[in-house]
Amino acid sequence: MTGVDQYTRQVNFEPPRSFGTILKSRIKETFFPDDPFSQLKKEPLPRRTIKTIQYFIPICEWLPKYHLGLFKYDLLAGITIASLAIPQGISYANLAQLPPIIGLYSSFVPPLVYAVFGSSKNLAVGTVAACSLLIAETIGEKVSPTENLQLYVNLVYTATLFSGLLQIVLGILRLGILVDFLSHSTITGFMGGTALIICLQQMKGMLGLKHFTHKTSVVAVIKSIFHNRREWRWECFVIGIIFLTFLQFTRYVKKKKPKLFWVSAIAPMVVVLTGCLFAYFAHAERHGIATVGDLRKGINKLSINRLNFDSEYLSAPIKAGLITALIALAEGIAIGRSFAIVKNEQTDGNKEMIAFGMMNIIGSITSCYLTTGPFSKTAINFNAGCKTPMANVVQSMCMLLVLLFLAPLFSYTPQVALSAIIISAMLGLIEYEKAYHLFKTDKFDFVICMSAFLGVSFISMDMGLMISVGLALIRAMLYIARPATCKLGNIPDSNLYRDIEQYPVATATPGMLVLQLGSPIYFANGTYVKERILRWVRDEHDVSKSSHNDIEYILLELGGVTSIDITGVESLFEVRRALEAQGIKMILVNPRLDVMEKLMVTKFVDKIGRNSIFLSIDDAISACRFTLKSSKQEVEGERLEDV
Amino acid sequence: MTGVDQYTRQVNFEPPRSFGTILKSRIKETFFPDDPFSQLKKEPLPRRTIKTIQYFIPICEWLPKYHLGLFKYDLLAGITIASLAIPQGISYANLAQLPPIIGLYSSFVPPLVYAVFGSSKNLAVGTVAACSLLIAETIGEKVSPTENLQLYVNLVYTATLFSGLLQIVLGILRLGILVDFLSHSTITGFMGGTALIICLQQMKGMLGLKHFTHKTSVVAVIKSIFHNRREWRWECFVIGIIFLTFLQFTRYVKKKKPKLFWVSAIAPMVVVLTGCLFAYFAHAERHGIATVGDLRKGINKLSINRLNFDSEYLSAPIKAGLITALIALAEGIAIGRSFAIVKNEQTDGNKEMIAFGMMNIIGSITSCYLTTGPFSKTAINFNAGCKTPMANVVQSMCMLLVLLFLAPLFSYTPQVALSAIIISAMLGLIEYEKAYHLFKTDKFDFVICMSAFLGVSFISMDMGLMISVGLALIRAMLYIARPATCKLGNIPDSNLYRDIEQYPVATATPGMLVLQLGSPIYFANGTYVKERILRWVRDEHDVSKSSHNDIEYILLELGGVTSIDITGVESLFEVRRALEAQGIKMILVNPRLDVMEKLMVTKFVDKIGRNSIFLSIDDAISACRFTLKSSKQEVEGERLEDV
Repeated sequence: MTGVDQYTRQVNFEPPRSFGTILKSRIKETFFPDDPFSQLKKEPLPRRTIKTIQYFIPICEWLPKYHLGLFKYDLLAGITIASLAIPQGISYANLAQLPPIIGLYSSFVPPLVYAVFGSSKNLAVGTVAACSLLIAETIGEKVSPTENLQLYVNLVYTATLFSGLLQIVLGILRLGILVDFLSHSTITGFMGGTALIICLQQMKGMLGLKHFTHKTSVVAVIKSIFHNRREWRWECFVIGIIFLTFLQFTRYVKKKKPKLFWVSAIAPMVVVLTGCLFAYFAHAERHGIATVGDLRKGINKLSINRLNFDSEYLSAPIKAGLITALIALAEGIAIGRSFAIVKNEQTDGNKEMIAFGMMNIIGSITSCYLTTGPFSKTAINFNAGCKTPMANVVQSMCMLLVLLFLAPLFSYTPQVALSAIIISAMLGLIEYEKAYHLFKTDKFDFVICMSAFLGVSFISMDMGLMISVGLALIRAMLYIARPATCKLGNIPDSNLYRDIEQYPVATATPGMLVLQLGSPIYFANGTYVKERILRWVRDEHDVSKSSHNDIEYILLELGGVTSIDITGVESLFEVRRALEAQGIKMILVNPRLDVMEKLMVTKFVDKIGRNSIFLSIDDAISACRFTLKSSKQEVEGERLEDV
Repeated sequence: MTGVDQYTRQVNFEPPRSFGTILKSRIKETFFPDDPFSQLKKEPLPRRTIKTIQYFIPICEWLPKYHLGLFKYDLLAGITIASLAIPQGISYANLAQLPPIIGLYSSFVPPLVYAVFGSSKNLAVGTVAACSLLIAETIGEKVSPTENLQLYVNLVYTATLFSGLLQIVLGILRLGILVDFLSHSTITGFMGGTALIICLQQMKGMLGLKHFTHKTSVVAVIKSIFHNRREWRWECFVIGIIFLTFLQFTRYVKKKKPKLFWVSAIAPMVVVLTGCLFAYFAHAERHGIATVGDLRKGINKLSINRLNFDSEYLSAPIKAGLITALIALAEGIAIGRSFAIVKNEQTDGNKEMIAFGMMNIIGSITSCYLTTGPFSKTAINFNAGCKTPMANVVQSMCMLLVLLFLAPLFSYTPQVALSAIIISAMLGLIEYEKAYHLFKTDKFDFVICMSAFLGVSFISMDMGLMISVGLALIRAMLYIARPATCKLGNIPDSNLYRDIEQYPVATATPGMLVLQLGSPIYFANGTYVKERILRWVRDEHDVSKSSHNDIEYILLELGGVTSIDITGVESLFEVRRALEAQGIKMILVNPRLDVMEKLMVTKFVDKIGRNSIFLSIDDAISACRFTLKSSKQEVEGERLEDV
């Protein structure tokens, strides 16, 4: 491969693509990274229309192919998740300071909507703890649910509407990209912090307290627990511990024997039913064990007239709506994706957003509050063998039956049973092992995770989330502001050039300095890249001064530079000017398509000359050596004289 | 080079460096990219102490070596910039709605301070138009300078103090990085918009108007010009046009013959003196030509007792201080850097920040307002042949003489002369050619530039700046959220692998898909990278289905991936899982040091096996081919049967 003819291999100096072409491909990569319509291109028009409808309303795709064989699985899965939906619905409504019936309503309408618009086959729709608490925190600041429940509930519906609207807008604008900015580390910390607070708050139910704080910081909650010491009821606590032990045991069973997942799936229902029976027969109220109370028969009422856009309160539902919308999306989409990967299916994040948005908009006018795809429910749905979104329809039908006939039964559910169910669910969300893993593997990710955890625990949920996302963004900014550069050396007996720090065996070529740049070069790092290159040259000079070996060429390996903007090109111009002043020639190696186009259009290529751009380091070095040879020989001569 | 022994070349699986080492090198790259102390390491302690003092107080370095030969140059340069400082000082103070004497004060103290702490040899200190206007806009919103001048001036001093404090803090924290986020495009647009507004505002002076708006939007200013049509004075306008023509002519002379730069440098002074003489002898006031008025002899008074921290007004000086501090830094540092590059010297942005900060803090307590290194003055200083910051000392001494003896003379300066000087200076800042260049070369940079220009012109200066920086940041985010990937093919007769789109001659290897990833992989783009890889595989499948050529290996070229975080590693895990489900093996090629360490520590390397990581694509393909061979032969056989 080595030889003189080698550096005749041509770099592509094709004129740049038109602006339109570039813009189109950029927009496609940014907003349609999954290329959803690629399959449509080849089809004839009528078929394409059907496919497009099927794309936007997935039920049109799967329902015609549906058959009894599939329904068998979906029926079982649907009943299982419904049995979880009842206790969870009541519990989380409790957490959101809402009347328990709204929790049941929220498992009836939204699953039906999702079945129509949703694209994930495994997702089970339901309410989630973190968002429920966040709603209570944000709206509770404005209106106390104990003082004016009617207004509070209205504002929660309004917040749900805003969530839905935001989700649908994000989906239509294909801004799924926003969810990408919630990193795993942030979510781990946020979930952990939320779970901790929720667990502590459940001490109200576990200890049978009547007065309790509405604040969510750990300090306030612990203070409140001990402040109301006189209200502690040991009866409550004993029952709570029994329930909790039972629930944790079923989780343990599931962990040991994954086939017995249904044991943990129906356990909350068992707890609720046992609690109801116990409360009914033992007249629990008389012993200070509070029950849920007031669950009337009947399905969701329309709540469109309850939406409240009064400017006095509007800020609270907007804030709650926007934050919970993003968290709900992050949870729902991430979960949909993970299970899709297991089954080797695709999910379209932007389509899911539209489905979630529809779900919450319709939910907000039918007495439901925020729903998404909660992790626990989806996992159970998946394990129960669901095949299509029909499982959600089954869930919905079960809830319909409950609402029509059985709801009053559940009014006997003791609060302590709900607290035990919530604590048991939350304990699984404090992933201390994952945090330790982060600590071991990436300290900065650990800091991001802990900032979310501590922020949520000690300040507030939204502040914790924002601090963590802010830190993650700062880190991202640092990545782009300080891209790694390294000096390359030749790996002996090969034409490979690798980082000298990573491969100490690699040797530098005399008279030349080979630098590898990485990441895009643009305004945020142009100055840095420029100064870093000049510093490499200075360092090299310091070393070479002693060894009579001056740098004559600088080779910049641009293979890792994915794009460059005007400020970046100007930095390269400045580098070139500075190097020229020192009598050093600048050579570019392997610029990529986007970079090459920008260098052509800014006349940089004309300035440094086409013969200063090479396809590979090897080519460039051979060419440089060829011209170096004469001057090298002189230097060699001098050195001999010195000796 | 090709052969079986080739793929025995080892990838470096050294255990990762310790967290401390990595952290130290990261911090160094982030905050000390110019490695300021590298030269100190080798020195003995006493010498190191001296060097450190010299580093922080640069005058200790250059003054002992100073001699008469250098002073000759600095004297000339100093006198030249002083002759510019007088008219500019008065004009810009006028723009900032301040008494003109404050403009002269601001060219006396700050240059002295800069001479002590500044590291740039070319920078000339003075006030700048954009910041002057911004101060007037922001503080004028709170307190009208016409109604309560005393309070207004106090708040300007306070804003200057905040600017200085912010600059010094940024310098100490080595956050020069913040200035990097003001891109060239933003600055071009911002300067252009500011210049446009300032020019329009000068119509007040040019037309001799008595009433005028304090707003800065183009619409408001134009409205104001025509609203006060009755106040227009043709005498004023004629004189203004004569001055402006003269000034523009001297600029033209300078452009044609750069050696005659002094003509344009002293032109403003000539205009002022001519104006003064004319006003004095022609009793200009009687003809409706306003003069500056009230310039008393005497040097700066202390203004420490005038700083106002009243919470009622505090928000205005804080806002004005912070925004102008950043703009002043961006301008001053960028200019220092550009001239340093021409002379092949280094400037330390963070040290400059401290110098600017000292300058403004001391300025704020000695009746000065915001100063920085303005472009025009610095260019003239450079052209006049300045050698050290002593030129600033000379400027300062000239101003001292003016303040002590000549100030009252300048009270005859007609406003229209100042307006002509400002317009002439501003016309040079509307760089429509640069905007056109941006349009031709980078549409998005053009949008960023125009958003600053239009935002400043039609909304307000700070909003325009923020919109533009916001857009630039969104662009940066998109860069990192959607890093380019490409499919590589083999360039015939070589072992090079290049982008197939860029080099259509490159051919894919049967049974393998080689992808090049670029930029860091982490939370913001992990999902995208994963889905993009899987989409490449799908596309490949669609093509290969017809040609009976299934993909068995995916090679990921990671040379361009500068770093990876936990979310990124998890994405790779997920890619691997998805590929395995399709029976495709994942191979990594040439991971860089940081990436390799993260892959080792997260056990990813153990998962995919060390023999799945190669140093070059060539090695990987040879190795894959070796194991492919058997299955290939079967396929070949089948294909023959098909035929």
